[in-house]
Amino acid sequence: AVAWEPEKPLSIETIEVAPPGKGEVRLKILFNSLCRTDVYWWDVKGQNPLFPRILGHEASGIVESVGEGVTDLKPGDHALPIFTGECGECKYCKSEESNLCELLRINSDRGVMLSDGKTRFSKNGQPIYHFLGTSTFSEYTVLHAGCVAKINPAAPLDKVCVVSCGFCTGFGATVNVAKPKPNDTVAVFGLGAVGLSACEGARVSGASRIIGVDLLSSRFEQAKKFGVTDFVNPKEHNKPVQQVIAEMTGGGVDRAVECTGSIQASISAFECTHDGWGVAVLVSVPHKDAEFKTHPMKFMEGRTLKGTFYGHFKPRTDIPGVVEKYLNKELELEKLITHSVPFSEINTAFDLMLKGEGIRCLIRMEE
Amino acid sequence: AVAWEPEKPLSIETIEVAPPGKGEVRLKILFNSLCRTDVYWWDVKGQNPLFPRILGHEASGIVESVGEGVTDLKPGDHALPIFTGECGECKYCKSEESNLCELLRINSDRGVMLSDGKTRFSKNGQPIYHFLGTSTFSEYTVLHAGCVAKINPAAPLDKVCVVSCGFCTGFGATVNVAKPKPNDTVAVFGLGAVGLSACEGARVSGASRIIGVDLLSSRFEQAKKFGVTDFVNPKEHNKPVQQVIAEMTGGGVDRAVECTGSIQASISAFECTHDGWGVAVLVSVPHKDAEFKTHPMKFMEGRTLKGTFYGHFKPRTDIPGVVEKYLNKELELEKLITHSVPFSEINTAFDLMLKGEGIRCLIRMEE
Repeated sequence: AVAWEPEKPLSIETIEVAPPGKGEVRLKILFNSLCRTDVYWWDVKGQNPLFPRILGHEASGIVESVGEGVTDLKPGDHALPIFTGECGECKYCKSEESNLCELLRINSDRGVMLSDGKTRFSKNGQPIYHFLGTSTFSEYTVLHAGCVAKINPAAPLDKVCVVSCGFCTGFGATVNVAKPKPNDTVAVFGLGAVGLSACEGARVSGASRIIGVDLLSSRFEQAKKFGVTDFVNPKEHNKPVQQVIAEMTGGGVDRAVECTGSIQASISAFECTHDGWGVAVLVSVPHKDAEFKTHPMKFMEGRTLKGTFYGHFKPRTDIPGVVEKYLNKELELEKLITHSVPFSEINTAFDLMLKGEGIRCLIRMEE
Repeated sequence: AVAWEPEKPLSIETIEVAPPGKGEVRLKILFNSLCRTDVYWWDVKGQNPLFPRILGHEASGIVESVGEGVTDLKPGDHALPIFTGECGECKYCKSEESNLCELLRINSDRGVMLSDGKTRFSKNGQPIYHFLGTSTFSEYTVLHAGCVAKINPAAPLDKVCVVSCGFCTGFGATVNVAKPKPNDTVAVFGLGAVGLSACEGARVSGASRIIGVDLLSSRFEQAKKFGVTDFVNPKEHNKPVQQVIAEMTGGGVDRAVECTGSIQASISAFECTHDGWGVAVLVSVPHKDAEFKTHPMKFMEGRTLKGTFYGHFKPRTDIPGVVEKYLNKELELEKLITHSVPFSEINTAFDLMLKGEGIRCLIRMEE
């Protein structure tokens, strides 16, 4: 599905996908699930008008062929493409504390392969650009091998596709970064796919209370499936939501996870945590001009503010384990997938997201 | 030594010190070291004009008598008075994550004992107010037993008095909160007693490089004794100090500790940390109108910002262990004490601090 220009429906057509170069992998994509980030870079909010482009990054598939030097993947391996990579060699990959690979860190501007600065997609000789190093809205796509996580072939690819972006982003923010202890209280700001996955992280951590915060009260029903016990709609209160939450919880929540991208929600998430030990985690990408502002005494009183990217998961090292947790029934990924369309109807998935309907729409590449 | 009014020299005179009430302890104070906080509450910057008052909070002494119900202290015990307490019963004291006792948390406004709302100091019947629950500029003082840390009697009281405030505040911020790993790089903003103690924490943690940041270049020589290897004076650069430090360290320091109380230094301390894993810790109390501002992407990139109070030490539980470390020669407290005066010359200690001379001035209560 080629995005020829912004905000125009994607066009399904036959294109050429070159073989993988050195250190690259060609994946046969079987399932996509549509993430807000694809929509963001397709409509005018995505500031870099790099078109024509093949979008898509939350997906699952099977290795079709590998390029020179790729030894840890072979044709037939089941895999998830990941928009942020793990080269395994840089100081970030070697640090236990970071998943921000220096070589393969997310780059939404780059539309070509790292190895030779060229695209692997073309139509009648015209290059078509890549997106996030993944470009999964294509039956075949080429990725740097560092962006491919090999997973257990027993995993149903139509369920674990959500692991490759949205699920891990929210779930990891809770379990890897906020790290609630059993019986802790947790507030989650924003109940989209990422926020609900953050709730799932709180649920499996044994949180005693999970407070969902969203401007759409209708989301509470759905959120209950993810363990949300209390709901706060900031619009229904005439005082700051952090104050509402502090009053509900005898001084604040133990942990808060911000999944809206609103700077005001980020500040509220931080300020609604309990003094002495509260930890707030920022997940969503804020506006480029956004400024985080708070009184420094909020920190002195023992609160901690952290951010994280892709839930602090290292793609190749950690993702196979997340898939295993699903296979062991510790996680319930099905709850995230509320719609499903064939690849030919991919624009319906875009419509559903723009209307705010459901959580994730699965896109089936083969009918 | 009574402070009858702000900014006037303290007056040494004979006063009455009542016996300890229920749950209280009367301490014979042997040594004080002057901390900036005493000066702050003595001159006009201290906003609450609660006078006459007995200042002083960084000290050491011996238990003289105990009130009803005090079972864990007895006359003759060596002890440090601590301006923030540990009741042992509240949710903060019961949490492993916080040292902010609900009952005995620092309170600079209160000038009376908690038990009966009265002072234990008087002169000819006129009450004289307490300060920070300690009021150690007195040969005898009365404290809540939760503010008294019993220590090994082998410890020299003229050295360990600095443990009761300044040393722990800086040292704990590094070892308990910033937690550098061996070979990490650490930046410390502000090279007063607290900042130098933070450097000492970095030194004993095995930091590979300790970058001192101060507006007074003359402080570098002294700071070398505390392990400081590099020095940056922000005034000597025409770019933000966080940029200078990032350039010196290949992307930023692993840990930063802010000990100046300047909001701009707080922001610089946070922003000078390395993406992926940088941790900044705010130690100094900022101006009440100060606002911490940064771009939220700084958090998303994997940085963490925390604050701490009294180095995250629980007074009664943890302080005896700090004193043991000194006795085991793991810490070098002597370096902090650069001057010494008899109690009768306590105003000289104030003069030295106002002139910025030395680090700590010891005040010997007995000659």
